[in-house]
Amino acid sequence: MKFAQYYSNDGSAKVALVKEGRLFPLFFEGDMIDLIRRGFGFEHGSQGFLPSEIPFAPAVSRPSKIIALGLNYRDHADESKGDVPDSPLIFAKFPNSLLGHMGTITWSPRITKKVDYEAELAVVMENETRNCSPMQALGNVFGYTCANDVSARDLQFGDGQWVRGKSLDTFCPLGPWIVTADELPDPNNLKIACRLNGNTMQESNTSNMILPVAEIISFLSRHFTLYPGDVILTGTPSGVGAFRDPSVYLKDGDEVSIEIEGIGILTNNCNEI
Amino acid sequence: MKFAQYYSNDGSAKVALVKEGRLFPLFFEGDMIDLIRRGFGFEHGSQGFLPSEIPFAPAVSRPSKIIALGLNYRDHADESKGDVPDSPLIFAKFPNSLLGHMGTITWSPRITKKVDYEAELAVVMENETRNCSPMQALGNVFGYTCANDVSARDLQFGDGQWVRGKSLDTFCPLGPWIVTADELPDPNNLKIACRLNGNTMQESNTSNMILPVAEIISFLSRHFTLYPGDVILTGTPSGVGAFRDPSVYLKDGDEVSIEIEGIGILTNNCNEI
Repeated sequence: MKFAQYYSNDGSAKVALVKEGRLFPLFFEGDMIDLIRRGFGFEHGSQGFLPSEIPFAPAVSRPSKIIALGLNYRDHADESKGDVPDSPLIFAKFPNSLLGHMGTITWSPRITKKVDYEAELAVVMENETRNCSPMQALGNVFGYTCANDVSARDLQFGDGQWVRGKSLDTFCPLGPWIVTADELPDPNNLKIACRLNGNTMQESNTSNMILPVAEIISFLSRHFTLYPGDVILTGTPSGVGAFRDPSVYLKDGDEVSIEIEGIGILTNNCNEI
Repeated sequence: MKFAQYYSNDGSAKVALVKEGRLFPLFFEGDMIDLIRRGFGFEHGSQGFLPSEIPFAPAVSRPSKIIALGLNYRDHADESKGDVPDSPLIFAKFPNSLLGHMGTITWSPRITKKVDYEAELAVVMENETRNCSPMQALGNVFGYTCANDVSARDLQFGDGQWVRGKSLDTFCPLGPWIVTADELPDPNNLKIACRLNGNTMQESNTSNMILPVAEIISFLSRHFTLYPGDVILTGTPSGVGAFRDPSVYLKDGDEVSIEIEGIGILTNNCNEI
């Protein structure tokens, strides 16, 4: 199954089932995290909306945390001149950064002048999870979606600590919807790409991750209790803008898309204000 | 006013008014963040509990984020051989790290062997806040409490990125209660101390912050929307264990307390498992 979040008329995030290219709002007074916690035996009406008819919210809007992995594709570690770390490199994005499909990535040039894209497979947790083995890990996943780990490179590299440059409002597009784990039994065999104004900037396969999804979840769960709806970003392949020659940064009016096989396409526009 | 969170019989966090050394549970079916969002005109019974009679929850248990400042006291920047940063150094603690007063800081020696303490003044936000000036900043604060920014130094310095070593479960004691902002009009004139088994390890005053609280909030709000209940840790003074000669790390059975003038004493025990 596929589930999307959309903004209802009162501004709150609600859940729709995605079927045959249409979104069917569930008869359910809660958001994605409520759905994950309570299970998904809810009815929906016969009227479906086209994606263009409904404002998308981020696929999850109030995770207790967004955990991200750095340097988890070898080619990206190479291009960034970062050694492949001995243990997985963890960083955080604050949840204020979340943005839905078709939302606008927005920044002020007084804060950053080097905004970059990163295509990533995002994992959404189903169960409260701690100390799980790699064998058990995927059984605790609710589903998968596309993420753009938008990064203000001047802040990221200037600070040393990455969280400020990774967490500006709108810097974590997530969606367009979650594909439940039963439909993607192997999350490490999916084509992944980033396109900027139609040009392919990143193109790889999640099979190229250094640490596969099951190992990531196991590793994290030995440090932090994972909660339903927690989001894990699994790293980006090579081709980001900062390490191109010449560098490529997002500009006002750009359109950036993340596509992952079996999930869909997450598209956002850019606005420098 | 002072408000504490305690665990009710069903395991959920509820709010009590703290008055004359006793905790009076509010007639209110919500937690601290609900109280902050809805305002605090709630009644309570005449029966108060002694602090020893009630299990404390963290002063806030589900903030959308915990934002922390590094190197915000000059003497601590000196002892850690870190230059005072050009712009405030931001890092994250994941909310799974939260722990209440009298809770047990717990770690496995398979994960970390260098667990350190850091006394910090914590700010709890009241209003949704973005782009606020330093003049407006304190008007958006709900209150203040004590925090212990417990840090696994081997993970923190080994990773470079600090969030893993800062976010292990139980590594953010917060409490014992929140003192509302009206009772602490100047948060930058408070004595702050850390005691380990009764010995004073850190002793300073929040007047020694490089960036005072109002400037911190203004700075953060220009990057991230702040939400009701968000927690800001404002940095620690000198005297942490890692930079002592010889180093001092927390051990099984230790008792560590953070005291801030006008707020109270946050005490936790340590358990290496």
